[in-house]
Amino acid sequence: MELLQRFLKGDKPAIARVITKIENGTDPKLLEEIFPHTGNAYFIGITGPPGAGKSSLVNAIVPKLLENNKKVGIIAVDPTSPFSGGALLGDRIRMNDLALNENVFIRSMATRGSLGGLASKTKDIALVLDAAGFDYVLIETVGVGQIELDIAQVCDTTVVVLVPESGDAIQAMKAGILEVADILVVNKGDRSGADRLILEMKFAFELRDEKINWQIPILKTVAIENQGIEKLASTVKFHKEYLERSGEIEIERKNKLVLRVNELIEEKIKTHLHNYIIDQKQLKKMIDKAYERKITPHYITDEIVKKMFLKKEV
Amino acid sequence: MELLQRFLKGDKPAIARVITKIENGTDPKLLEEIFPHTGNAYFIGITGPPGAGKSSLVNAIVPKLLENNKKVGIIAVDPTSPFSGGALLGDRIRMNDLALNENVFIRSMATRGSLGGLASKTKDIALVLDAAGFDYVLIETVGVGQIELDIAQVCDTTVVVLVPESGDAIQAMKAGILEVADILVVNKGDRSGADRLILEMKFAFELRDEKINWQIPILKTVAIENQGIEKLASTVKFHKEYLERSGEIEIERKNKLVLRVNELIEEKIKTHLHNYIIDQKQLKKMIDKAYERKITPHYITDEIVKKMFLKKEV
Repeated sequence: MELLQRFLKGDKPAIARVITKIENGTDPKLLEEIFPHTGNAYFIGITGPPGAGKSSLVNAIVPKLLENNKKVGIIAVDPTSPFSGGALLGDRIRMNDLALNENVFIRSMATRGSLGGLASKTKDIALVLDAAGFDYVLIETVGVGQIELDIAQVCDTTVVVLVPESGDAIQAMKAGILEVADILVVNKGDRSGADRLILEMKFAFELRDEKINWQIPILKTVAIENQGIEKLASTVKFHKEYLERSGEIEIERKNKLVLRVNELIEEKIKTHLHNYIIDQKQLKKMIDKAYERKITPHYITDEIVKKMFLKKEV
Repeated sequence: MELLQRFLKGDKPAIARVITKIENGTDPKLLEEIFPHTGNAYFIGITGPPGAGKSSLVNAIVPKLLENNKKVGIIAVDPTSPFSGGALLGDRIRMNDLALNENVFIRSMATRGSLGGLASKTKDIALVLDAAGFDYVLIETVGVGQIELDIAQVCDTTVVVLVPESGDAIQAMKAGILEVADILVVNKGDRSGADRLILEMKFAFELRDEKINWQIPILKTVAIENQGIEKLASTVKFHKEYLERSGEIEIERKNKLVLRVNELIEEKIKTHLHNYIIDQKQLKKMIDKAYERKITPHYITDEIVKKMFLKKEV
């Protein structure tokens, strides 16, 4: 209990220990104890392709968020395989200056197994920081892919960062990442091509008809020179106010809880599929039959799913 | 029935129509009718980052695979969002020369919705080409991500293509794509950095201890100049012989069938989660409670999963 009390007071070593316990899954009840203390933090996602300058942007924006004695928790997600661990060390070292601030807590998350697992753990760690009393929880993800979409799912405001060169925009569009953007940032905005990229993005967003009440702002920054950062911070705060004023924040957060529950159900089923649900001997027999082309994988699926559920209409 | 007969004779328009039907899911029994005719084709996956020259490689290797009167079916998977459709038109146009060959069939697959759905459909289309009598089914995927890993799951031989520049290797490692490689190709091998990349890859593979009986070959090609292609084709054939000789092909294909069934089960559960399984009214009530921080999403999950299954031990 003592750990939890220190944790709720915002004691950094206690926060770190709670995170490690949640990460390792060693104390299944811990999240339940913490959960009643959540719901106060505002979740901000910062995502974009590698090299877009997300870490610089985080370094620049955090001081703005800290104004008025606010506290900021940062989760840096590196979906890095064991092979290339440490590739992003430089970014992390730069961030260490922030870590010395008593109102800032930084946690790096690296994958040890599945990417899906990483995104799911990250969401729980975000809740931990919420409970620990941080006003803003900032989640920075490296890369453009499913994991970023997954994490956007828990963020109130998702900032997508692009840079002029290297076809990032196309990659981001392909990955569907623009579709989760609440704010779009063209970083390294002093480079040639920045204005053209902004125009392209404006055009792309005009084609969308969702989120009609919130016109997605497209901002230009030069993070390492602190240009455009003030505007970005105020735009994030403006989006927060918009969500709160319109009541959308409650609707959005409930929708996100539904998505999270669905995801946890899928995870749980996936984990238990082998251990409990499927009769392995029977499965082996059916696979042998499928190998001999007597029954299809789809047929096996139907048979298993039929047995799996109480309700027969599936 | 007439369509199926023409299809089994390898009639191209019939093949195209069967594929469209499978893609659209308009004829659920069709795959079952086709499945008994599968199991004869050898599945080759070609994957790697955008710009690695995969299409050029496919263009170059297909004539080698066609030797001895063999037939080759090609599936080109573009996980492209509607935004940027047509970005890869150039590659497809080049491939059209191949399409004129009567022993070649090419199908482009583009995403219309979820990436997961695309990978799953691609696997069914591969079975269609198998049943249509193609000796080799070649699946080319653009990008480095989950979808490539998913598709590797049905391939007997997976060829991963990298190029010297642009940190592809690190990206590929991050995405775990090297872990599914049976053969590694460094394309654009005449560029500076090619030899260094090969050395790096050799080192990286030495760290692995899986697939110990098959030492992953690292080949150098210049696809547009047809360099190294003969060697690549013979290495693919050598891998095929290795799998057949050692009996690994049966074990591998059965393992892959298990993975496919698991995946189909997950898909089915996902699809039906909302429609049938979860009591929406009850879910709404629980979400409201979670929003008020009275119960956790994990608790809701446990409640739903418990009710979902006949077996209570989950």
